[in-house]
Amino acid sequence: MNVAFAGERGSFAELAAEEYFGKTATLKPVTSFDEVFGAVMDGSVAYGSIPIENTRAGSVHGNYDLLLDSGCSIAGELNLKIGQFLIVNKETSLRNVRRVFSHPHALAQCRHYLSQHPDMKPEETINTAAAVKKVKDEKLHDAAAIASMQAAIDFDMKILAKNIQDDNNNTTRFLFIAKRPRIKQPANEKVKTSIVFSMKNIPGALFKSLAVFSLRDIDLYKIESRPMFGAGFQYLFYLDFDGDKHCTPQKEALRHLQEMTTFYRCLGSYPVGNTVAPKYVKRT
Amino acid sequence: MNVAFAGERGSFAELAAEEYFGKTATLKPVTSFDEVFGAVMDGSVAYGSIPIENTRAGSVHGNYDLLLDSGCSIAGELNLKIGQFLIVNKETSLRNVRRVFSHPHALAQCRHYLSQHPDMKPEETINTAAAVKKVKDEKLHDAAAIASMQAAIDFDMKILAKNIQDDNNNTTRFLFIAKRPRIKQPANEKVKTSIVFSMKNIPGALFKSLAVFSLRDIDLYKIESRPMFGAGFQYLFYLDFDGDKHCTPQKEALRHLQEMTTFYRCLGSYPVGNTVAPKYVKRT
Repeated sequence: MNVAFAGERGSFAELAAEEYFGKTATLKPVTSFDEVFGAVMDGSVAYGSIPIENTRAGSVHGNYDLLLDSGCSIAGELNLKIGQFLIVNKETSLRNVRRVFSHPHALAQCRHYLSQHPDMKPEETINTAAAVKKVKDEKLHDAAAIASMQAAIDFDMKILAKNIQDDNNNTTRFLFIAKRPRIKQPANEKVKTSIVFSMKNIPGALFKSLAVFSLRDIDLYKIESRPMFGAGFQYLFYLDFDGDKHCTPQKEALRHLQEMTTFYRCLGSYPVGNTVAPKYVKRT
Repeated sequence: MNVAFAGERGSFAELAAEEYFGKTATLKPVTSFDEVFGAVMDGSVAYGSIPIENTRAGSVHGNYDLLLDSGCSIAGELNLKIGQFLIVNKETSLRNVRRVFSHPHALAQCRHYLSQHPDMKPEETINTAAAVKKVKDEKLHDAAAIASMQAAIDFDMKILAKNIQDDNNNTTRFLFIAKRPRIKQPANEKVKTSIVFSMKNIPGALFKSLAVFSLRDIDLYKIESRPMFGAGFQYLFYLDFDGDKHCTPQKEALRHLQEMTTFYRCLGSYPVGNTVAPKYVKRT
């Protein structure tokens, strides 16, 4: 079974997929989130692994847009604890580091460490593992990368500092996307449902949309708003709520909601994700 | 009166400040949003001009975090229509362009144009005007920048294509921040209020927080959630609603809300912004 992720080997999206699918999966790196969705929809992979939200940096908004545009469904999720490591070439020592490369979210997660090391100038790269690759390929001896321990192992690099993220509970939520909805749920797993909708222009529209869930004692996990294309500052809402869309009272709540929506799509009902720390492995 | 903005001359934040404050303002470029907030709080400028939301790319989440962390207040807003232009050195023609530099949001706003020109490889820069500066300073003849027409004028560059953004209603909302709240409102201006809060862990918490406004017929403009630092996937909510916090029934709604919040801060009551297209000027 093939699973696509965006980035280099050792990226957090690859670690998440390895945790979720185990040894049954063959991980396929591609160069962008667009390509992950594309590979899922054209059938060349069974699943894609995408980050959707980090406890420090917030939502990955481009992936909310791609979820909608692609027509993909959500099949599962995993919360991965994120440890950030300062990674260099073997000859480099801490006092030589003048530049630090990483993804903007990873740099933001290490703001406190970077403020204590004003000599290190942060510079942005497309993803964390790409930063490690750059420092290695360009043989940079005045530079470090911030990335996962797995990236240090995969690129055979030296770790100068461990767990330099501000928050020890730093966690990223990953979604596993598939071409078609996952229909059957294992019997004793807790399930959540993700939907996207826009509301008619009526007074208190957002309040009324949440009322259809609250009036039925259905807990909400998350609400996210994104501007609608070409409609100025009007919004699409992405909502995660407790339970399966095929069950009562969720089914009735969704029918009630659609009395008031101008657009509605269900992105999937899927098992609520566990929170895990990545296992690092020496790959051959 | 000094007004700080992040970026090079010709950036959209500078154009927004010029539209809002007119000729009374002296615009001060700094290198980051952090520095804009810092300059406002240390009193070296009276106001800062920051983008908060674009109709295509969504919210600028880092600026929501800085609004909270800095203690700044919102004094005003403006919706600026955004036209994106393909800008090159005078000797460069369209068939030579192999790379296009711009801010990720600007590249996202021109996705359709870029998909029709697959020879042009998009590359990210810190802001739009910095992309123009790079193409000029490095004398690149195989590259273009995507930025405002003002940046083309300010850097004395050639425009190859006009208004290449996907959406002709492409608009960015800018906020003007100040150290202290603006107290007096002009009599006949429409006013909105921005607040940030987190809710007690009670069933239907978000629904109940919106109810305090809906039960009093107070219209909501926008809701935005951001993860709370160190609290896993728990959220701070940023809410914009109609009216002045000192008026009835807004004052009572805010008192009602605070019966249920674990954190609450008002970011300011300020006049609702107009929507304008930038005026381009030849500067001396």
